[in-house]
Amino acid sequence: MPFEFDTATQLTATATPGTFEGAIHAGWDINGNANGGYLMALAARAMRDVSGRPDPISVSAHYLAPGPAGPVTVQASAVKTGRQLATLTGSLRQGERELLRLLGSFGDVAAMSGGYQHTTLAAPDVAPREQCIQHSSARAAVTVPLADRLHTWFRPEQAPFLPGPKSNIAVIEGWAEFADGRSFDTLSLLLVADGFPPPVFHLDMPSGWVPTIELTVHVRGIPSPGPVRCRFHSEIVQNGFLQEDGLVWDSDGQLVAQSRQLALLPRG
Amino acid sequence: MPFEFDTATQLTATATPGTFEGAIHAGWDINGNANGGYLMALAARAMRDVSGRPDPISVSAHYLAPGPAGPVTVQASAVKTGRQLATLTGSLRQGERELLRLLGSFGDVAAMSGGYQHTTLAAPDVAPREQCIQHSSARAAVTVPLADRLHTWFRPEQAPFLPGPKSNIAVIEGWAEFADGRSFDTLSLLLVADGFPPPVFHLDMPSGWVPTIELTVHVRGIPSPGPVRCRFHSEIVQNGFLQEDGLVWDSDGQLVAQSRQLALLPRG
Repeated sequence: MPFEFDTATQLTATATPGTFEGAIHAGWDINGNANGGYLMALAARAMRDVSGRPDPISVSAHYLAPGPAGPVTVQASAVKTGRQLATLTGSLRQGERELLRLLGSFGDVAAMSGGYQHTTLAAPDVAPREQCIQHSSARAAVTVPLADRLHTWFRPEQAPFLPGPKSNIAVIEGWAEFADGRSFDTLSLLLVADGFPPPVFHLDMPSGWVPTIELTVHVRGIPSPGPVRCRFHSEIVQNGFLQEDGLVWDSDGQLVAQSRQLALLPRG
Repeated sequence: MPFEFDTATQLTATATPGTFEGAIHAGWDINGNANGGYLMALAARAMRDVSGRPDPISVSAHYLAPGPAGPVTVQASAVKTGRQLATLTGSLRQGERELLRLLGSFGDVAAMSGGYQHTTLAAPDVAPREQCIQHSSARAAVTVPLADRLHTWFRPEQAPFLPGPKSNIAVIEGWAEFADGRSFDTLSLLLVADGFPPPVFHLDMPSGWVPTIELTVHVRGIPSPGPVRCRFHSEIVQNGFLQEDGLVWDSDGQLVAQSRQLALLPRG
């Protein structure tokens, strides 16, 4: 039986080179609109295929319209095919409506591994999952079917959607793991990079849908098997926009993805 | 007399809509290759023109080849023209060689200003410029003509290129101001976002040319007149790549730009 993520990002090549057909699958959404990381992974799968490289290295997506479940067309086109990296554009459309435009470089993380290493970003010391609060598709004010595909657990004091006064600290740390036990690979890190509720939900501001304008994910390593630890945080809510950064560590404590998105402030 | 930055990013529309002619001007380079922020600004000026909006909001560029001085063609094409934002692709070519492919959203920062504000990123308390170390086009091991266009000053203990043991702290804070007194606007923040030497020069690793793979800049405010304060820092050097983040504050202490780039490790 194939894993849910692989089925949900499955694409069929058409007679036109670089054009694929697939679908936004139900169940990867928040209140009916597909998660932005899932949409990026769906489009990046086509780009990866055309690139002939195993891994997304740096992918940026601009989000043009929300994505309800239904058939989609993905186009991927090479900009430059270099020795270490291949750079491609991508586009995800639903009928006439373009949902995502992407630009990304793909390569081979394993082939680049080793050499000088320096990191000041150690994995956060998150309590075991059984001491964390698991996200539920029904607990939130909105329905989050995504939480039944990608299980997420939050540090108790950082769990969103709890009653009581806001902490005003826009940080959520916790765990993520596929519900069906699929291991993470470099493609599915794109999903994880947008897989937590917005940490700005901890701020004393109008809450609601936080539409992503742009998301960039850097894949920095091949994840080892097991759950990943995540840290999402926002530092700047200003002039109608907010930034959200994400960090993902594998079970060996290796930082495997770093992301940043610019999103519109909820209108309340 | 026009300011140097405006002359160096000047473009002439051709008969083909969205296609402009211009040049990579000498003097904005490091050792003969144009600065990545300058190249982004040059291409983004065409994208901004086609967008009909005053400000870059989020621009990502993938760097495909180094840019020596000489004539270039810039193409800009609308992906979506929305109410708040217009999303465009951009391409900068030198003859047959594509140097940059871009994707960006443009809008009106002033029209979005106000509303809920929250920032935990205060401007660093950098000493006045006369107590800092000014970057020089000749001080470095390589020539940095850029330093004669965009003046930069570094915290004395964080100045790169000084003799002595490495600090192993990949942070450079300081000031930036155009040599000819031009005020910063939202377009020139794209230059500033790549205007400092790489903070990884403070690490005990092989130094040399650090080729940018991808740079994303978020413009978060309209800079007030006067010099800007900057903080550039790298946290993750791993598997052949390094990340560099930039923060730019105006003279009122407002955070006006946030950037991140993924670059290749110097080969030493």
